[in-house]
Amino acid sequence: VVHVGLLGCGVVGSAVARAIERGTTDQRGPNGTSPPPRFEVTQVAVRDPAKRRDCSIPRHRFVTDPVKVAGDPGIDVVVEVMGGVEPAFDAITVALGSGKPVVTANKELLGTWGSELAEHSARGGVPLLYEAAVAGTVPIVRLLSDHLASDRIERIEGVLNGTSNFVLEQMELGLDADEALQRARDLGYAEADASRDLDGTDAADKLAILARIAFGEPVSTDDVHTLGIRSLSAPDLRDAVERGTRWRLLATAGRGGCLRVEPVPLPADHPLAALRGPESGVLVTAERAGTLLLRGAGAGGDPTAVSVMADLAVVLRCS
Amino acid sequence: VVHVGLLGCGVVGSAVARAIERGTTDQRGPNGTSPPPRFEVTQVAVRDPAKRRDCSIPRHRFVTDPVKVAGDPGIDVVVEVMGGVEPAFDAITVALGSGKPVVTANKELLGTWGSELAEHSARGGVPLLYEAAVAGTVPIVRLLSDHLASDRIERIEGVLNGTSNFVLEQMELGLDADEALQRARDLGYAEADASRDLDGTDAADKLAILARIAFGEPVSTDDVHTLGIRSLSAPDLRDAVERGTRWRLLATAGRGGCLRVEPVPLPADHPLAALRGPESGVLVTAERAGTLLLRGAGAGGDPTAVSVMADLAVVLRCS
Repeated sequence: VVHVGLLGCGVVGSAVARAIERGTTDQRGPNGTSPPPRFEVTQVAVRDPAKRRDCSIPRHRFVTDPVKVAGDPGIDVVVEVMGGVEPAFDAITVALGSGKPVVTANKELLGTWGSELAEHSARGGVPLLYEAAVAGTVPIVRLLSDHLASDRIERIEGVLNGTSNFVLEQMELGLDADEALQRARDLGYAEADASRDLDGTDAADKLAILARIAFGEPVSTDDVHTLGIRSLSAPDLRDAVERGTRWRLLATAGRGGCLRVEPVPLPADHPLAALRGPESGVLVTAERAGTLLLRGAGAGGDPTAVSVMADLAVVLRCS
Repeated sequence: VVHVGLLGCGVVGSAVARAIERGTTDQRGPNGTSPPPRFEVTQVAVRDPAKRRDCSIPRHRFVTDPVKVAGDPGIDVVVEVMGGVEPAFDAITVALGSGKPVVTANKELLGTWGSELAEHSARGGVPLLYEAAVAGTVPIVRLLSDHLASDRIERIEGVLNGTSNFVLEQMELGLDADEALQRARDLGYAEADASRDLDGTDAADKLAILARIAFGEPVSTDDVHTLGIRSLSAPDLRDAVERGTRWRLLATAGRGGCLRVEPVPLPADHPLAALRGPESGVLVTAERAGTLLLRGAGAGGDPTAVSVMADLAVVLRCS
């Protein structure tokens, strides 16, 4: 049994816990033979251990100090899905420092400190994996870091923030900005505080992560020229639809060029204009592979947990 | 240095040889530290060793017997890109039997004997990888076998044959079937004998491979209800476009349901109706991840070689 220390047990964390409970990881690996690795969530660090969670981890495994869990010798792997820079940074640093592989979905942390953490991971030879940090269930990190490793990536173009995409779509359909945001909250596509979504910062975090992998440069969220969607009005969006274009919050990065997140009027038949609601999509152009498109659920507990579970399987397979 | 035995040196084989010569494999792995593994094409088996090839492998490394290369103790890994069932089957069997990992792009072989070869690979614990066998550069095999391993795949829907997709598109634009096929040949999108493309057999091979991975059942090309595109006429296709639909050769498989390859009139805004020319695209629906779309170059030497190189990197990383 591999003992997992789970940091955070919100929408994504409880979905990971449920996936681990189902215990189906890796039953269909390339060679189909090895028995599925058994994971067990041994400790969960949360702010309020008394709160009800949507999974069946026994109450006594809940604790409050993520850094302590990360350093506990009884933990083999750390899954960090608490979000935010602190105390996640400390917890991950302690985990890597004590030789524990880390799987994280924390785009804010990786956007800001991704280069430093990757270096820490590399120095110690301890895996730090983060497929779930960008575009939910869409395996864009693996595409860039593994699949295209023999190629030269030229350009990335993506719709990376599901909340703003949903809000823009709703505004095209007739809602005003506040109504659209309220609707996103009602459906669970937006948090109470959606500033990082609407201001483009969330998309900028993700773009910085992708650009760092694709171009091998130590970029961070601060390097992204970022403009959110707040300046767009519903009538503007509807006029654009009538002219055959759809405003979308587009994140773009080119090799050697600058990183941008900004609203762009896409032709209606552009593959990224077709995303529905909270979907994410990324177009990657490489010298030999040409242009690849990946599209799928960019958020949500269960879809994001699929990416976390894939990272956990990598940790196991290659350790 | 890892000694590669290359079986076949046509469009894909020479692209693999060039990629190995560039030696850039895996420089951007998740942790960025390990020096790139060095591959060397030590032997190449081809029908005619005297023929000029589009790569710089020295002439003396060319031989004629693929089975002998596969069994040679000086070879560490076998890359099979010769196509066809025989002698590829024998060569791969010999390679796996002597403990050599195999990377192949051979959809015909895997469509027919995929279950048996996968079992052979599993029995001996010797990797058999075939990302390049389905949809060229599009990492659909890895999506099903690795990324969605914790999920339950419900349905696969794909346009898996670039030649027929290109031909249909050209017919929509006004060419008749023969002109469209000739154009595909001129552009290198079709072989001299395109029967397996037009009859749907090539797409059926690929669907069988994907269904076997997704649903864990030992299906083969024979299990696919297959209808090609020969019955479609240019006027029919153009009428359909005017009614807002586009005929595409669609491959579909559902869990527990039947496997089909057949022309289907897709709504113009269907993601698979938007594929351009020889592109491939696959929609995968899983219980928790939802629906994912992957799209990209479905054929061509360089794009397919990207998938071969990714498999080679996996062989190295986990051996």
